[in-house]
Order: sequence, then C-alpha cells, then structure tokens
Amino acid sequence: MRIGFIGLGIMGRPMALNLCKAGYELVVFDINEAPVKELAEAGAVVGASSKDVAQMSEIIITMLPNSPHVREVVTGKDGILEGISSGKIVVDMSSIAPLVSQEMAVVLAKVGADFIDAPVSGGEPKAIDGTLAIMVGGKPEVFNRVKDLLEIMGGSVTLVGEVGSGNTTKLANQIIVALNIAAVSEAMTLATKAGVDPGAVYQAIRGGLAGSTVLDAKMPLILKGDFKPGFRIELHIKDLMNALDTAHAIGAPIPLTSSVMEIMQALKVRGKEKDDHGGLIQFYELLADIEVRG
Amino acid sequence: MRIGFIGLGIMGRPMALNLCKAGYELVVFDINEAPVKELAEAGAVVGASSKDVAQMSEIIITMLPNSPHVREVVTGKDGILEGISSGKIVVDMSSIAPLVSQEMAVVLAKVGADFIDAPVSGGEPKAIDGTLAIMVGGKPEVFNRVKDLLEIMGGSVTLVGEVGSGNTTKLANQIIVALNIAAVSEAMTLATKAGVDPGAVYQAIRGGLAGSTVLDAKMPLILKGDFKPGFRIELHIKDLMNALDTAHAIGAPIPLTSSVMEIMQALKVRGKEKDDHGGLIQFYELLADIEVRG
Repeated sequence: MRIGFIGLGIMGRPMALNLCKAGYELVVFDINEAPVKELAEAGAVVGASSKDVAQMSEIIITMLPNSPHVREVVTGKDGILEGISSGKIVVDMSSIAPLVSQEMAVVLAKVGADFIDAPVSGGEPKAIDGTLAIMVGGKPEVFNRVKDLLEIMGGSVTLVGEVGSGNTTKLANQIIVALNIAAVSEAMTLATKAGVDPGAVYQAIRGGLAGSTVLDAKMPLILKGDFKPGFRIELHIKDLMNALDTAHAIGAPIPLTSSVMEIMQALKVRGKEKDDHGGLIQFYELLADIEVRG
Repeated sequence: MRIGFIGLGIMGRPMALNLCKAGYELVVFDINEAPVKELAEAGAVVGASSKDVAQMSEIIITMLPNSPHVREVVTGKDGILEGISSGKIVVDMSSIAPLVSQEMAVVLAKVGADFIDAPVSGGEPKAIDGTLAIMVGGKPEVFNRVKDLLEIMGGSVTLVGEVGSGNTTKLANQIIVALNIAAVSEAMTLATKAGVDPGAVYQAIRGGLAGSTVLDAKMPLILKGDFKPGFRIELHIKDLMNALDTAHAIGAPIPLTSSVMEIMQALKVRGKEKDDHGGLIQFYELLADIEVRG
C-alpha cells in the first residue's frame, strides 16, 4: 500500500521521514525542491503533482499551512480530486477551519473517497520525535484504516468525533492556550509593577487553582525574557482567526479570544510575530512600561 | 501570649476554632453573636470591641470581607489603633487591596506596631481542615514571629515579599483563575455549538499545553451543569475589583481581567452571583444559545 504525502514543510518533512523510516512506501509532493530531494534520498517516490500523488497512493496525507491551501490542493487544477478514486482516503493533518474540513469531506464523498481531519499539536520537536498529539475527526471505520499510520507520527491519537472534530478540538486547545498565556501575562505584569518579585509569585501560586501547563512552561522563559519559538505568534494568530471565523459561522461568540487575537496583532505591528506566543507578555510590558523578569 | 481574632465569618470562625484546638489563648470579637458564643464555648475570651481585643492581645488576627472593613476595624472608633501598643502585630488575613495593606502598615508603624498581610486561598473546606494556602507580605523578622501561628491554619505558608505582597499575589492568583475559567468556557462553548462532545474535547486536550488545574477542577462540574459553590462569583467579582483598582492606581492595565469581571457582572444581573465561578460558562451558553453538557 502506497502512502501519499503532500506538504513537506517544517512539520510535514519530519513526519514524512518518520513514515519512510517505519518502512512505508511514500509518494511525495511539495512546491519546494529541497525537502522533496531529501525524501527521495530517503527512498520516497516523487510525484509530479497532487493529482499524481492521489493516483499513485491509497491513502493521501496533506500537511499544509491553512484552509485555502487545503482547498486548492484538494479541488484546484492538478489537485487530489483529479487523481483520486473510490475507496481511497485523504488524511488532512493541517490545522484549518473545521467547516473547510467538512467541505472537503463532502467534495471527496462524491467520488467515493473518504476524508479524515487529523490536526496535530506539539510542534517541530514532536514531529521529529514522532510524538505529536493527533486529534482526529472522521468515521470510526475510516479512522481504523489509518490509525497505525497516525501512530507512527503521534504519541497520542484520539478520535474525537465526526469530520471537523479534529480541527474543532485543535481550535479549543488554541483558545485555552492563548487565554492562559494572557492570564499569566496580566497577573505577572500587575505583580511586577506593584513591586513584587514575579518569580516569588509564580512559586506561591503554581500549586493551587491558578496552576497550569502554560504557567509552568512559559514563566521560566518569561522571567529570562526568552521569547525564541517554540510556537510563533503568527501561527497562533492563524489558529485564532480560524476559531473566530468558525465562531461567527456557527453562532458561538468568543469575545476574549477576539481580544487576545488583537493583542497578538498589536505585537505583529511591532515586528514580534516570529516570537514565541509566550512573548504575548511584551504587550502588557509595553502598556505598563516595565519588564517582567526575575 | 494571647492571640486576638476579629472577624468570625465563614472563614474566620473555623480558623479561630483551629487556633483554640491547638491550645492558643484567644480573645475574639465579631458583630454577630452566634460565632462569638461558639468560640467562647470553645474557651476563647470575648472582647467588647476591636480596641478591647488589641489591648488584651500580643498578635491580632483580622479576617474581614474587604478593604473598607479592614480600614474601619483598624482606624475606626473603638478600633485596633485605639487599643494597640508598640511591639504588637496585626496579621490581616482578609483578601483586600494591597495598597490598603500598605496604608494600614504605615498607620500602625506610627504607634510602633507591625503589620503583616496574609490572605488565604482554599475556601471554607481548607479553613476547616487547617490546610489553607497562605500568601504573606511583611518584614521577615515579623513573619518569623507569626509563622507557627499561621501554620496552624495553613497547609502552605509563603513569605512573598514586603507588606502588600500577600494581597498582590492573591490578586495575581485570582486573575489567572478567572481568565482560565473564561478560556475553558469559550473553548467548550465553541466545540459544543460545533457539534463536538465537550467531554471528548476535554479528554483530548487535558494532557497537552491547554492542561490546567482549572480545566480538571471545573470541566467535570460544567459537564454536569453543577454550579454549586465552591467559590462564589460575587467573591470573585470583589477580588477582580481590587485587582482593577490596584492596576489603575499603579499603572498596569489588565484589559482581559476587566472583560471577565464584566462577564461576572452580567451573570450577577441574572441572579447567578451565588453560583460557583465555574458557572461563568453560563454567560457563553446564553450568548450561543446552547448548554455545554456531556
């Protein structure tokens, strides 16, 4: 059984390499030459287009930047839809709007092909290690056909619900992470400006109800002023834009998510969009005219 | 050495009882008769006023609703200031504005008395068990004189910094808790309205960067629609009002805290101020016209 892999970027390249190493026969495609060459050297067949990959593979994985790219690769000229046939499966591992996942599933169902959305979290290090958290939306019987494949790339693979559920779960995750970072930022900026050592505040509260993975992951970096990514603010903006588009389309207002997205946009204005999302605190430091360090 | 205890409410009553049980000689005062009578039966001496308590005790603990009550009990007619003398210590365990803590310290220093702010978290159950988290602001040498006493009431007792630091730390804690609850609420409302089971989303994300003590404490209750307190929204409003007053006074804008406080005010309009703060999600359920249950 041949596996197609379209999109060999920061995440897709190591994910595809892990499938090669696990012995899967890959057919790859990307608009950039360098990662295609690297995969060819690792034993992958090189496809001429997304259409070509879809023709040569049973299961086609896509790992692309955002919703428009997925729509183009599936339905555009020389796209997957032109090459795919009944019984094949598209596994979209991109983080996109869940309504676009559902749209792709409908389009592919017309030619008898199945669709699964399987966005990931964990970033480049976990892509390299094959320990991504993979959140899956799709029919259980389709999920069962791709589960082994996903487990090569993931440390945890969870079927959440129907098509789109994977991306909805990812958006829920990204909303919580963004707001938890803002929470830490507001609290620690207040404490610092009040003259209290933010490191002491962190130690005093981390064991109680204010404790969180974000607090423990980001505070040590904030105290050093270390905002190297990690997960870039510009990517979090993309995810929150998808969350807001989804919220507006389905009728679930999320006003604080909207505010934290605007804070990220303000940091982008100052050229900080490549910083880690923990760098969100710099917005508050600007407002309060201090630095939160310890 | 006699210990004064002023304020025998939901929190103060069990805290004072624990000191009695530990063998401390207590002098108590409260405007309500019932808890005073209970403490007297447990062996405490009953003071006629805050002034009276201050005259008869070496260390005077106060546990009052908010900043104005502390200011009145310390500086008002028949207050602590009229009865206290040099070398005595006031330990204010109320959750109040840190600038008022500093004001009280200055007032008491004029008569040679010391002041420590030592607000708590953990609520009535931990007050009863004597396992409160106590965040202390004050001079280390003053702290050392009251540490044993605080450890009767607390499971953890942390000196954070100078006077006011205890309350600043408490405010930082309450900001993070409020915003983390809002984060969970926005994420789960979006997921539910998108047709995804919120319990499945919770399980899929709790082990990752979105994980938090709030998520694990509140999601099981949210999924059951159980908003019995716990920690009441009206008390969280009080803390966030103190956070905002402090933020404005010192120049540390906290816009998302302001928004989540307004959300709590909106719930108060609908008579939900006695609900647990996890009931914040009801605001989003109203907006989205759904219930997040699982």
